[in-house]
Amino acid sequence: MAEIVPSRRVRRTPFSEGVEAAGVKSYTVYNRMLLPTVFRSVVEDYHHLKSAVQVWDVSVERQVELRGTDAGRLMQMLTPRDLRGMLPGCCYYLPTVDETGGMLNDPVALKLSEDRYWVSIADSDLLLWVKGLAYAWHLDVIVDEPDVSPLAIQGPKADDLAASIFGDGVRDLKFFRYGYFDFQGEQMMVARSGYSKQGGFEVYVEGTKLAMPLWNALMEAGKPFDVYAGCPNTIERIEGGLLSYGNDMTRDNTPHECGLGRFCSTQTAIGCVGRDALLRVSKEGPVKQVRAIEIDGDLPSCDRLWKVTAGDRVIGQVTSAAYSPDFGVNVAIGMVKMTHWDAGTRIVVQTQDGPRDATVHETFWL
Amino acid sequence: MAEIVPSRRVRRTPFSEGVEAAGVKSYTVYNRMLLPTVFRSVVEDYHHLKSAVQVWDVSVERQVELRGTDAGRLMQMLTPRDLRGMLPGCCYYLPTVDETGGMLNDPVALKLSEDRYWVSIADSDLLLWVKGLAYAWHLDVIVDEPDVSPLAIQGPKADDLAASIFGDGVRDLKFFRYGYFDFQGEQMMVARSGYSKQGGFEVYVEGTKLAMPLWNALMEAGKPFDVYAGCPNTIERIEGGLLSYGNDMTRDNTPHECGLGRFCSTQTAIGCVGRDALLRVSKEGPVKQVRAIEIDGDLPSCDRLWKVTAGDRVIGQVTSAAYSPDFGVNVAIGMVKMTHWDAGTRIVVQTQDGPRDATVHETFWL
Repeated sequence: MAEIVPSRRVRRTPFSEGVEAAGVKSYTVYNRMLLPTVFRSVVEDYHHLKSAVQVWDVSVERQVELRGTDAGRLMQMLTPRDLRGMLPGCCYYLPTVDETGGMLNDPVALKLSEDRYWVSIADSDLLLWVKGLAYAWHLDVIVDEPDVSPLAIQGPKADDLAASIFGDGVRDLKFFRYGYFDFQGEQMMVARSGYSKQGGFEVYVEGTKLAMPLWNALMEAGKPFDVYAGCPNTIERIEGGLLSYGNDMTRDNTPHECGLGRFCSTQTAIGCVGRDALLRVSKEGPVKQVRAIEIDGDLPSCDRLWKVTAGDRVIGQVTSAAYSPDFGVNVAIGMVKMTHWDAGTRIVVQTQDGPRDATVHETFWL
Repeated sequence: MAEIVPSRRVRRTPFSEGVEAAGVKSYTVYNRMLLPTVFRSVVEDYHHLKSAVQVWDVSVERQVELRGTDAGRLMQMLTPRDLRGMLPGCCYYLPTVDETGGMLNDPVALKLSEDRYWVSIADSDLLLWVKGLAYAWHLDVIVDEPDVSPLAIQGPKADDLAASIFGDGVRDLKFFRYGYFDFQGEQMMVARSGYSKQGGFEVYVEGTKLAMPLWNALMEAGKPFDVYAGCPNTIERIEGGLLSYGNDMTRDNTPHECGLGRFCSTQTAIGCVGRDALLRVSKEGPVKQVRAIEIDGDLPSCDRLWKVTAGDRVIGQVTSAAYSPDFGVNVAIGMVKMTHWDAGTRIVVQTQDGPRDATVHETFWL
């Protein structure tokens, strides 16, 4: 693959210096910002993530901040998920849809107070959608991107590493809850969350002043735990069935197609954008849905949508795929039509290197 | 610099096959799609662009389509530029701003008919802003991204090459006008426009069927003109003062700061978003503004904002810079405060490799 050319438009992060010193080998661009994708090798990074602990520069998870009297009202308009039970200290996974129920993003929202939220976004300018709605509806809310850069601590030893920096209190944090913990005299927001199935935390670092000090402190304190710089790992996230916005779902898809129907309280989330379309979808369920797929043979890089066929008919698509060393098979994420989505169904995946036989898998590989 | 890792999220284009065959060496990501940045070398590409003709895959200039009874009304809401004189066949450069007058994008809009427009965007999801406004205002308009991928023909021999494919009629096309021309039995929209100062065209290719046939036909017919695959060239665009959204301007900047005040008819563009803020700005003019800047000494890669100082004070920023072989100096684009923006003012540019003396230049290098 070719090189990536630097420019201001493809933003560096407050941790770029640390990422470079750790020998980053490749990047992708996510929310117009650099996201590391490989340090040692995808496979080495994978084994290490599953056995030790990694520090990830996930500054690309930009925040959309909503603050003002109407912040809560606007938040509920953004998602079919019922937010009435959301309290400060909570993180909510939030399918965000347009008027037809098409996915615009799948962020994690944090409620800071009754009139202030952060929405930690996947790869689309959700800010512009929220700003458009707030402006056109004359809402009393300011919508902006604050200077916040998340740093993730992921892996089976994440609790030990986090505790060595933030104290043992951090161990008591429940899944998808956040709290404030001291680092060098400042309170940092730490959430138990992250884009892996290995467990861990995300630290919402404000500004740049404490960014590299925190990175360096984690690297130093993590030596006994074999810490290393890391990043979201393609193999691990496919095994775990973690969807990637832009890869496995786009504006073409409803939450129900993405297997996110359980987050859609369309009956009670009164007035959210897309409610009518999603009420319709929820009546019969979706025609196609996300499935774990096991693919036979050698695979090229999944850098484009692969059609899935049965006989002469296109019955789905594969959008992420990789060889899993731990399971000894090619693991993949795709969408398959109802006619062929039952576990065990044999299908054909059309890669750029030709067709590959494949099977619809019962579950992801956990 | 590191490699870029492929994924479906970073979209390939209908011309990717041609781009790869031509030996692309590096990419950037623009609107979540691959944009080539170097073929032979930046300097070789530069000399070739200025002397021959190049074919550019600029599929990343995604279209936002507005169609419906309210399309014209919504278009005018998007921009302080007065659109009342815009006719079908016209391309308009369109500063697009938020409610505070901050730049959201600087697209080129094409009017297809009274109720249908394409907005050919720079690097931000303008689609989400337009969709948000259309939805919240209950406008009778459909806003979507059609399957259109622009291919540019740029360079002094662009007229000859375009004429050999589309016929001599294409030579009569005026600047920022478009027409329909036959290619293999289908009508293609061709505009006299493009992101260089060397002249040329942009072909708005619909779908994928004729994409590679057009690429190949241009490569074949272009042999007498020394055609080669190319891409927007950093050196050439800085010399020419072509701003890059995300590099030289962001949501922090008003059109007036970007030197785009002449496109702001805030007095007559009744009701456009941001009108009140821009009326205020236009009263006294901006405090800082885009300037051509000549920088002394050796320069590192301009991959981040460089502060501009005078004594102890920060009085601006440089956001794009490169060595110009033709002018024998480092050319740069920045913003400088009123106190220091006069031509000839000596300033200091703070690069990651240390300070560099510099001079505010009267004009760009044309």
